[in-house]
Amino acid sequence: MMNQKRLERVLENLRAQDLGQMVITDPASIFYLTGRFIEPGERLLALILNTSGKNSILINNLFTVPEDLGVVKVRFDDTDDSVRLLASCIEAGGRLGVDKNMPARFLLPLMEMGAAAGYELSSACVDGARACKDEAERALMREASRLNDEGMAVFSQWARPGITEREMAAHIEETYCSLGADGCSFTPLVGFGANAAIGHHEPDDTPLAEGDCVLLDVGCKKDGYCADMTRTFFFRRMGEKQREVYDIVRRANAAAEAAVHPGALFSEIDRAARSVIEEAGYGEYFTHRLGHSIGIEVHEPGDVSSVHHEPVRPGMVFSIEPGIYLPGEFGVRIEDLVLVTEDGCEILNRFSKEPQILG
Amino acid sequence: MMNQKRLERVLENLRAQDLGQMVITDPASIFYLTGRFIEPGERLLALILNTSGKNSILINNLFTVPEDLGVVKVRFDDTDDSVRLLASCIEAGGRLGVDKNMPARFLLPLMEMGAAAGYELSSACVDGARACKDEAERALMREASRLNDEGMAVFSQWARPGITEREMAAHIEETYCSLGADGCSFTPLVGFGANAAIGHHEPDDTPLAEGDCVLLDVGCKKDGYCADMTRTFFFRRMGEKQREVYDIVRRANAAAEAAVHPGALFSEIDRAARSVIEEAGYGEYFTHRLGHSIGIEVHEPGDVSSVHHEPVRPGMVFSIEPGIYLPGEFGVRIEDLVLVTEDGCEILNRFSKEPQILG
Repeated sequence: MMNQKRLERVLENLRAQDLGQMVITDPASIFYLTGRFIEPGERLLALILNTSGKNSILINNLFTVPEDLGVVKVRFDDTDDSVRLLASCIEAGGRLGVDKNMPARFLLPLMEMGAAAGYELSSACVDGARACKDEAERALMREASRLNDEGMAVFSQWARPGITEREMAAHIEETYCSLGADGCSFTPLVGFGANAAIGHHEPDDTPLAEGDCVLLDVGCKKDGYCADMTRTFFFRRMGEKQREVYDIVRRANAAAEAAVHPGALFSEIDRAARSVIEEAGYGEYFTHRLGHSIGIEVHEPGDVSSVHHEPVRPGMVFSIEPGIYLPGEFGVRIEDLVLVTEDGCEILNRFSKEPQILG
Repeated sequence: MMNQKRLERVLENLRAQDLGQMVITDPASIFYLTGRFIEPGERLLALILNTSGKNSILINNLFTVPEDLGVVKVRFDDTDDSVRLLASCIEAGGRLGVDKNMPARFLLPLMEMGAAAGYELSSACVDGARACKDEAERALMREASRLNDEGMAVFSQWARPGITEREMAAHIEETYCSLGADGCSFTPLVGFGANAAIGHHEPDDTPLAEGDCVLLDVGCKKDGYCADMTRTFFFRRMGEKQREVYDIVRRANAAAEAAVHPGALFSEIDRAARSVIEEAGYGEYFTHRLGHSIGIEVHEPGDVSSVHHEPVRPGMVFSIEPGIYLPGEFGVRIEDLVLVTEDGCEILNRFSKEPQILG
């Protein structure tokens, strides 16, 4: 069944943007509204919402959905012209809202058919609804992060001399599953020593050596919702500079988390962390935004960055992940997920942020 | 470095479509041309090709690429307006080709900025080049399927009374990795008994019982290229009807493979298999296209279906996967990958198609 409360929020947002209809192709948004996650691959999957209440879903016969989905089902085969069917579900006289992920292979032919009177990006109507998690979603976000805390405790114990990043990454997914999660929410990032200073470094055959930092940026998925946490450990010893940098990043993380409350701007939260790092003289080594929103997808719209000046609202969940990356030396990042509450925030990760020496 | 031969093929296709420029956002196509696979997530990654030779790539500073990529690199941060930068790389006076996967969140704002004089789907220019694998790619496709054959031999030995589909699926990826592959090319499909008759059934807690069919639709990835194979086994015994259906599907698979040669239409190959199944009286239970093209992605444009009337050409690789699905009873599918050669085809999977009783 369609989730009526969520649907109503999206329809309200459409009305506020003066739109009568919208096409949603993002499987995550379709899951949000219908409770069914379908990965259509190259095939078309589209939910067409109309403020009149005449909603429909276009879905290939290959995929099963419950009978009582609460929307008109338009079924098709691989041999049908699915874009023409989509056009038939759209009011040609009205403008059409389009979600952010609609691929050009459907959008451009739809435009050529003259399916609507105009097209505009209205992803915020559904993404904005998704941004503020309802009670059921908050419980799911808590549970995913609880499992992630448990996972981190296991992974950090794997550190031993000579283990490679790849070897350490290899068993993360099955460990999550054995703990009760459904798998990884993204490809685990494991970085030893200087590799931890490289943005988006993928685990390779670098072996772990004494004095290395061990950066683990990992997350699991549970019942459709994502976790995401980073901890940076040190193997067998921790140098003075490592200790100094770790302390700065930890203070930046704490300062940002303390700045989260309804009405605070995303950019102010970014600033809270960035100031700590800049004042310590490492500003140029914090090379990315502070965080990102998260939920059904590991990255959702809503950057915690210097250029995002909207206020945060209760129910939003995002990461706080300051870092300092010293090329050729080491990198430190400390990341938690936070849930905005009525008067502050709830930190979803409980895993210790004390500096830890492993092995 | 850009692969000059592949780039030249794409530019030739653009000229043939009377286009001077094209934007490519598909990470798989960018890998095809540059040898670098970057998964940009929600960020923009775009290769802009121009038949004048003035090519450029827009890439976030978070991602590393070799210095000598052979195209102008336009770097940006999360705080930059990446779509405006993209517009600056496009000749506003000319029409712009767009690849199939460009998301609406980039395409619609680009159109609003008036970045080009017009927009058209020109995905076929790059997808068509990718469709005919060159020598290096053929070797990679062979190797991925060789590893998949090895994997199937291992997986089929896991059958034992009571093992669930989920348990059987759980160790497929690590087995591939231990054999030397890089992981799964798609989520493994494991279906026992009546579940094997459900399209796109995902592994659940159904336990294996005597008399069940065991459908394994699995694939690994190696060095960026995908394998994909299905075999259907029987656990401890094989009923008369199972034997009859298996034999029909096997003959359909063989008939289609025998029909593959340069110039044969995709639809003719589909027909070759479908006729066998229809003549045996099971036509209504073969509910999907015969196959799909494959390469860097597990599904690439080029369906082997009744409505695709283009001829196949040397270097194309696609699946031949007829099936018969009897709701509530069982399902049988037998799938190989084939590579079109100068005078026929090479079957990339060597794993036996004899009926096999396990356990």
